[in-house]
Amino acid sequence: MGILRLPPRSPAFTSLTTAHVSHLRALLSSPTSLLSSLDGSATNDDLTAFNVDWMGKYAGKSQVLVKPKTTKELSTVVKWCHDHNVAIVPQGGNTGLVGGSTPIHDELILCLSNLNAVRSFDPVSGILTAEAGIILEQADSFLASKGFIFPLDLGAKGSCQIGGNVATNAGGLRLLRYGSLRGSVLGLEVVLPDGRIWSGFSGLRKDNTGYDLKQLFIGSEGSIGIITAISILCPRRPTSTNVAVFSVPSYAACLKVFSQAKAHLGEILSAFEMFDATSYEAVKKYGGGGTGRNVFENESEGPFYCLVETGGSNTEHDSEKLSSLFETLLSDSLILDGVLAQDASQAHNLWQIREECPSALSAAGKAYKYDLSVPVDKMYEVVERMKERMESLAWVGGKVKDVAGFGHMGDGNLHLNVVATEFSEEVQSAIEPFVYQLTAEYNGSISAEHGLGAMKAPYISYSQSPASIELMKRLKKTFDPKGIMNPYKFIL
Amino acid sequence: MGILRLPPRSPAFTSLTTAHVSHLRALLSSPTSLLSSLDGSATNDDLTAFNVDWMGKYAGKSQVLVKPKTTKELSTVVKWCHDHNVAIVPQGGNTGLVGGSTPIHDELILCLSNLNAVRSFDPVSGILTAEAGIILEQADSFLASKGFIFPLDLGAKGSCQIGGNVATNAGGLRLLRYGSLRGSVLGLEVVLPDGRIWSGFSGLRKDNTGYDLKQLFIGSEGSIGIITAISILCPRRPTSTNVAVFSVPSYAACLKVFSQAKAHLGEILSAFEMFDATSYEAVKKYGGGGTGRNVFENESEGPFYCLVETGGSNTEHDSEKLSSLFETLLSDSLILDGVLAQDASQAHNLWQIREECPSALSAAGKAYKYDLSVPVDKMYEVVERMKERMESLAWVGGKVKDVAGFGHMGDGNLHLNVVATEFSEEVQSAIEPFVYQLTAEYNGSISAEHGLGAMKAPYISYSQSPASIELMKRLKKTFDPKGIMNPYKFIL
Repeated sequence: MGILRLPPRSPAFTSLTTAHVSHLRALLSSPTSLLSSLDGSATNDDLTAFNVDWMGKYAGKSQVLVKPKTTKELSTVVKWCHDHNVAIVPQGGNTGLVGGSTPIHDELILCLSNLNAVRSFDPVSGILTAEAGIILEQADSFLASKGFIFPLDLGAKGSCQIGGNVATNAGGLRLLRYGSLRGSVLGLEVVLPDGRIWSGFSGLRKDNTGYDLKQLFIGSEGSIGIITAISILCPRRPTSTNVAVFSVPSYAACLKVFSQAKAHLGEILSAFEMFDATSYEAVKKYGGGGTGRNVFENESEGPFYCLVETGGSNTEHDSEKLSSLFETLLSDSLILDGVLAQDASQAHNLWQIREECPSALSAAGKAYKYDLSVPVDKMYEVVERMKERMESLAWVGGKVKDVAGFGHMGDGNLHLNVVATEFSEEVQSAIEPFVYQLTAEYNGSISAEHGLGAMKAPYISYSQSPASIELMKRLKKTFDPKGIMNPYKFIL
Repeated sequence: MGILRLPPRSPAFTSLTTAHVSHLRALLSSPTSLLSSLDGSATNDDLTAFNVDWMGKYAGKSQVLVKPKTTKELSTVVKWCHDHNVAIVPQGGNTGLVGGSTPIHDELILCLSNLNAVRSFDPVSGILTAEAGIILEQADSFLASKGFIFPLDLGAKGSCQIGGNVATNAGGLRLLRYGSLRGSVLGLEVVLPDGRIWSGFSGLRKDNTGYDLKQLFIGSEGSIGIITAISILCPRRPTSTNVAVFSVPSYAACLKVFSQAKAHLGEILSAFEMFDATSYEAVKKYGGGGTGRNVFENESEGPFYCLVETGGSNTEHDSEKLSSLFETLLSDSLILDGVLAQDASQAHNLWQIREECPSALSAAGKAYKYDLSVPVDKMYEVVERMKERMESLAWVGGKVKDVAGFGHMGDGNLHLNVVATEFSEEVQSAIEPFVYQLTAEYNGSISAEHGLGAMKAPYISYSQSPASIELMKRLKKTFDPKGIMNPYKFIL
């Protein structure tokens, strides 16, 4: 995808040898916990799934993968790396979009998959304590069996890991309802860059004894420590859920629909998502695993669509609230049409339209993808101005098929896609850094929820002041003076 | 209150002179922004309200009070202090309970009261940007006029300031519903210890570009910078509110009432508070401004009381949910009796019973007060074990009148009061550090929401590991190498 400009390998880090691998292996309880092409325990092909991200955009050349089975074991490995100046990339489900979880060069890959136990769950407080390598969907299924819900949901739930979710401060589909992980994560266990285990665990909802160190690790993308377990406050699972999709005549009307949804649905509003006609057309054509999807009859289609979800504790009350919203939206002509799911399967199908936007746009062409935070009232202007730029270059219909926008409107989080016919330096240079300048102009953030990783590290100054960047560098230095943790990314 | 063991004055800090005061005065736009007993612009008596906390427990001897009118002015003052090694204590509403906002010796007092403008409010996103010195109640009234609510409420709302609330990570009455400030505060403006203004502002709900620096300042009690403005996400104000108080036969039953309240009220539960009979008796006798208060007929009184508040968007729906809770509680014999407020004035009166617990217990004797976080299922054991200790010393009915507990049960936050006849070293030594050891035994926190300040700084090791304390010291040193910010407190 375009040309990646990545930093060169630092000579400060040790190049691992067969001798190193056998030292490392001696620290581990099981021979299956280390795979390396250096000692023949793996081929380079075996390591590809860990060296390359799922988009195929970032490809490292690590020859050593370690999958510790306990925090203690992981801590021993990190201490060894620290003592031997070995660079490390921690890896969860490897579902990131910014090249944060794969090696840039030959960093040792520390995979969290084998740390996957639920340590405890307290049904009175709703506090779950679990290891980092649990798949998000598995954690949520476990909680569902207890009547609770994981306060985070996102498209990659079937493969992303909860440790990675916290390390990247993932946002997702229900932040509107359950808030940020910064509020719901109550404690962390972290292996520090020198191998010490920091137990910042808590079964407590409140703790005001000093700086809240765990906040430094949330969203730190493995740059100052490796999260090995989390404790998190989980809400009761809603017993009543409704999903509706509306077609909307304009973005201005989407804003009014959002206001009305907040007013009528109040405390039961659990998601408010938006996608534009270009995204919808892509899903119609390429969604449903390639067979396509449709919700609206042609005469009811509009330039915009809003998906509204409610989650409550009383089916009758929730339906009444939703009906009252529906009536207002129709009588105020804020929507062209609407579909209300009649059962769980229809609800799932409506969600699929929104959730398939990214993959459908990728199927429609070569999609340049940007995850931006913009004040909600101006959010769609970013899409329009990007389209104007492509039009001014006379590329639309040629090099560029279309420009699309969808995202978590309730949180002002836009996913902007420029769908080109080819990935090329010419197209990329027309988009970047223009897209970041545009975002800065709206006082937005160049990364709403995906993080910086390798992709956006060079552009941090579009969202952070020199004073902030200087403080961040000081923090990185304070925690990881040797710089071995996930180098070449995040804070350069 | 007992004997305060406070650190001696550090010789590293400059003692201010008349010459310093005139230099400082020249930096300010208004002569009323600096009060000092050194140049006769104030008497020592004038400064007492700023030198002494509201409980009269901590008394500093500062001779200089500065009240800047703008962030720029405040930054100039801090830079001057930094260059001249002058120690600073930032002060908001001075309503804290741990001696965090008054000088210990002769630190310059930097008062935030004059920084009190609302900078902006966006009714689409609910984001308020406002200066630190605004009184919490005023901020909430402003939001009420727009149909929104400040996501924090606490007893001192009439005098505490929102900057101080954030600097101490205040919890309060509705954390159960609106979550921690760590989730709702979106951005901060902070004057750093060297006088630079750090603008970590955001009108954005999501921003994943680097370490979340603002989290370091939330709850840092003025130790690494002075919060001058905040941006915060405010929810819609509930249009329907109900308050009920139940008398409950045991703490085990309180736990079941809490579970049932969560199950029946779901998303509309906005507060769940508990107080014991000792607290209630004190309110009956000393509440209502001294005239006393009563809720229950004698035959309905119990050893425990739970206050439940709902906040929703539909009166009828909310009443139905509350009735269904009431029926279950009565049919399962989980409560002895219950009172449901019929109007706003009755709701206010019910809240007053709970809110007057601290002052009524102080009126009942000399009350040693502790703010502890304990897993909710064991919360009341701490009160019982403290009472046992006082009984084992044969003090109950003598030196100690009683031991009482109340608090934010929904958050596992206990306010423990030991009501003595006199403050004495003997009684204090029997309580401390026993109370902290006890809390540690339950894996609790010695400060749930009040912070460390001067009072609990020496006891941090009961709640934080050596590794955590070491990291905190490194952070303090990184941000404030001269140690001028709020010295003798927090992290020693």
